[in-house]
Amino acid sequence: MTHNLLKGKRGIIFGALNSESIAWKVAERCVAEGAQITLSNTPMALRMGELNELSERLNAPIIPADATSVEDLERVFAESVQHFGGPVDFVLHSIGMSPNVRKGRTYDDLDYGYLQKTLDISAISFHKMLQVAKKQDAIAEGGSVVALTYVAAQRTFFGYNDMADAKSMLESIARGFGYIYGREKGVRVNTISQSPTPTTAGKGIKEMENLMDFAGKMSPLGNASADECADYCVMLFSDFTRKVTMQNLYHDGGFSSMGMSLRAMNQYAKDLAPYEDEEGKVIYG
Amino acid sequence: MTHNLLKGKRGIIFGALNSESIAWKVAERCVAEGAQITLSNTPMALRMGELNELSERLNAPIIPADATSVEDLERVFAESVQHFGGPVDFVLHSIGMSPNVRKGRTYDDLDYGYLQKTLDISAISFHKMLQVAKKQDAIAEGGSVVALTYVAAQRTFFGYNDMADAKSMLESIARGFGYIYGREKGVRVNTISQSPTPTTAGKGIKEMENLMDFAGKMSPLGNASADECADYCVMLFSDFTRKVTMQNLYHDGGFSSMGMSLRAMNQYAKDLAPYEDEEGKVIYG
Amino acid sequence: MTHNLLKGKRGIIFGALNSESIAWKVAERCVAEGAQITLSNTPMALRMGELNELSERLNAPIIPADATSVEDLERVFAESVQHFGGPVDFVLHSIGMSPNVRKGRTYDDLDYGYLQKTLDISAISFHKMLQVAKKQDAIAEGGSVVALTYVAAQRTFFGYNDMADAKSMLESIARGFGYIYGREKGVRVNTISQSPTPTTAGKGIKEMENLMDFAGKMSPLGNASADECADYCVMLFSDFTRKVTMQNLYHDGGFSSMGMSLRAMNQYAKDLAPYEDEEGKVIYG
Amino acid sequence: MTHNLLKGKRGIIFGALNSESIAWKVAERCVAEGAQITLSNTPMALRMGELNELSERLNAPIIPADATSVEDLERVFAESVQHFGGPVDFVLHSIGMSPNVRKGRTYDDLDYGYLQKTLDISAISFHKMLQVAKKQDAIAEGGSVVALTYVAAQRTFFGYNDMADAKSMLESIARGFGYIYGREKGVRVNTISQSPTPTTAGKGIKEMENLMDFAGKMSPLGNASADECADYCVMLFSDFTRKVTMQNLYHDGGFSSMGMSLRAMNQYAKDLAPYEDEEGKVIYG
Repeated sequence: MTHNLLKGKRGIIFGALNSESIAWKVAERCVAEGAQITLSNTPMALRMGELNELSERLNAPIIPADATSVEDLERVFAESVQHFGGPVDFVLHSIGMSPNVRKGRTYDDLDYGYLQKTLDISAISFHKMLQVAKKQDAIAEGGSVVALTYVAAQRTFFGYNDMADAKSMLESIARGFGYIYGREKGVRVNTISQSPTPTTAGKGIKEMENLMDFAGKMSPLGNASADECADYCVMLFSDFTRKVTMQNLYHDGGFSSMGMSLRAMNQYAKDLAPYEDEEGKVIYG
Repeated sequence: MTHNLLKGKRGIIFGALNSESIAWKVAERCVAEGAQITLSNTPMALRMGELNELSERLNAPIIPADATSVEDLERVFAESVQHFGGPVDFVLHSIGMSPNVRKGRTYDDLDYGYLQKTLDISAISFHKMLQVAKKQDAIAEGGSVVALTYVAAQRTFFGYNDMADAKSMLESIARGFGYIYGREKGVRVNTISQSPTPTTAGKGIKEMENLMDFAGKMSPLGNASADECADYCVMLFSDFTRKVTMQNLYHDGGFSSMGMSLRAMNQYAKDLAPYEDEEGKVIYG
Repeated sequence: MTHNLLKGKRGIIFGALNSESIAWKVAERCVAEGAQITLSNTPMALRMGELNELSERLNAPIIPADATSVEDLERVFAESVQHFGGPVDFVLHSIGMSPNVRKGRTYDDLDYGYLQKTLDISAISFHKMLQVAKKQDAIAEGGSVVALTYVAAQRTFFGYNDMADAKSMLESIARGFGYIYGREKGVRVNTISQSPTPTTAGKGIKEMENLMDFAGKMSPLGNASADECADYCVMLFSDFTRKVTMQNLYHDGGFSSMGMSLRAMNQYAKDLAPYEDEEGKVIYG
Repeated sequence: MTHNLLKGKRGIIFGALNSESIAWKVAERCVAEGAQITLSNTPMALRMGELNELSERLNAPIIPADATSVEDLERVFAESVQHFGGPVDFVLHSIGMSPNVRKGRTYDDLDYGYLQKTLDISAISFHKMLQVAKKQDAIAEGGSVVALTYVAAQRTFFGYNDMADAKSMLESIARGFGYIYGREKGVRVNTISQSPTPTTAGKGIKEMENLMDFAGKMSPLGNASADECADYCVMLFSDFTRKVTMQNLYHDGGFSSMGMSLRAMNQYAKDLAPYEDEEGKVIYG
């Protein structure tokens, strides 16, 4: 069931690669809720992925761009505005990549050239988007910008590596630019801190399966899926959240507010002491 | 424009007093979005307020209750379930009062009997609601419970007094019960940390006007209104946020992420140094 | 090796029961660093514990008190000031107890009379101490007050129950009273959020051993011991921290900033996928 | 009065420029507490500043280094270890600079080459230090590393600009590297979030005076001075804090936990409503 939550709104979705991508789901949900969109990703991603299929199905033009290039981003916003015949109402940033992770460099053996790329691709690209959009006045009054992040920005997960630094910076950019864009144009800027999600990018993270098992058992509602994340993005793009800005919003089934759950402890301690009383009744609370 | 976001859902709204109340606006918005509701407040509030008018207009029965009474709460849930012919889908807790504030007792001169009342009314009532609801299995799988709070739970505001302690406890209850209710029934529990709002209750806070001026100038989007808070509640009751739980969600125009804004500093420092360069151009960033 | 860090300072230590108590270690360390102290605990604890031995060894008078009684607390402060011939410089609050936990009531089946006791003993007692001290002007300018807390105030640990709510409130009191006491008397008020510690009280927490195993493996420096906590308390009582106030300070080997460590995951996932590459080399980062 | 808190310890102090520098005070306090140190700063800073005087007085060799150069940092650690005849016990990172701020580029008009420099100098230099030190095994078991930061990493202050992003990243590096260095070598890594301080660097921040006035009036203990910050650093380098790691520690007179103080509001609202009751008595709490 759809609700026309984004009827009449126009947006740009950065970072859809294939049907496992969160950005792909967001694109589908936004259109289902009445929005028109454009899609953008790198030329390399366009070759690897299946974005043409989505583009045709959603009637959403693809504007190729390297999100680290100001020039490319200027083109994405200018062409989107031209396509829509007016400013956009929402933008999704779902972009992140660490060459250090890909090349197996541990966090105490970073390549600093790679680190620079991690930051450029995963964090600074978000500032560039916002700066380009504001200079072009390409986002309408009351517009909404969302970037996807992960709780590793607050707490260390082994193996997440320099992506943690990039996500910390990404969230800082949301606050810093959110202040200015809010003050001057009424545009809100937030990040969604999503459960670990088995996307193509997520799968690049080492031992993703075990982490997802842990996160799922810690979270009272289980891990949030890509589809559910798309719902949450729609909510943030809609007019029901017009005074929410500069926030990092956890969409994670409760994980971020958990210290230890019974289910996770049962897995953790299964060869340690059992969680039963003398009569074999599991006690918890 | 409405979106049928709560079509087929049923809920209980605690704490509507008059048309300035946030809970009043939430009630109106929920019904506008397709929900059926019941209303509850104390017998005293029912005498003072104008709830009958709302009840009739929204076709929403009033079930009087002292929210510190488990027995009364049992009746509210039981009668609501009976009225609807099934479990409720959402609950709003918008209840708070400090006799210490009312009586002008400062925080270094608390009356501990009053403190007990502050906690009973403003925080423990939320636990009682949740415990009663769970024991009656009165909230449907996937249900959503929201309580209203204030950033004074994290940062000290002079004059907010023991309400800060109550709000801290309220947010802790949302986490603790959110874990259990999520794990066992898929019910989510969150708090919304709302801008200072000129409700009848808010007006009890000393020097509310100056604080609202400060909060408004600090927040890039200005203070969030009661109407906008109602929109945010609707979103949290809807199916667009099914994996959000145990969170404290700031709905405050950005205030919580601000350290100092240009506008607030201009008021603060207006007889100190001006924010202009040599040519009289205001510089910021 | 001692450093005379507290030379000439006088303090009150609440909550020492036996040699496993953190407060016991704090008392020893404070005296070793040159302080004079008084000790306080409930009459029941004085009977159960071994405080006389400590009192004699440290030349520290015991002043019995029920910390929920304003009258008793007035006596502790008045007699301490009289004993020292002047105001105290530091106070430790190491008091907490939940009848709900003791009686095996789960968090969705709280006894509200017990909850009241949990709050009175574990949180409100701290406010009473501060209010009594301020009214008697019993803490010297520049004094330092510390209460012990646990990360369950921020994140839910199954089984920690209503103590989480009490700790949230305790930390709120530290902020609220810290503001007033700092502003008017230069007294600082902080909480230390300590690793799970195998004290007599800690052992009351269900399945403490497994939780300590998890916390220890999550924390890069392992769990902090009671002795190390005593060192940290000394620092907070010393003149090296005179501008630290209203803070919750994690003393936990890094636990609070961890999302998942390699060591904890190796235990968690030991029957899931191994953390090795093809040549059997453990990879991490 | 000194306490020999760092007797027998050796450390490296990065970032002392002149007697207003926090790092300068830290150097003095460390030596007063019994430590031996080396000093490092850029060749340019060495020309501008007065480091020779400090070096001679403290008997502390200067090892020039551009902290963005891995090679230079390798030399600082190698020569320090050689000078001391063994590994160091503590390191201070007090380095930060934004060409965007210096050149008056606002946050919505950043020069991305400058941003890269801001990050390299103010954040990545900290990772490089840690990575170099670990590769050389130049920090002894139980060592302590501290970097200075500012609350703008959490909340937006107008004019702080891209330094906020750099500080967010700096704090993330402290967590990420703190995990690894703690796990493998027992080295702890923390950041101190210091009050605005009128150093030569601080004076580069726009309208520093008004901000300091506001921060001072918000903080119940007033702003923390550079001397007091040096005390806090000594504490973190000492053996009294051996289980504190991956933390961001506010040293700010309480500012970070304040929402609004009476004193700040009196300045803010001085031409608005007064904070007095009918008899002219100021009421607060």
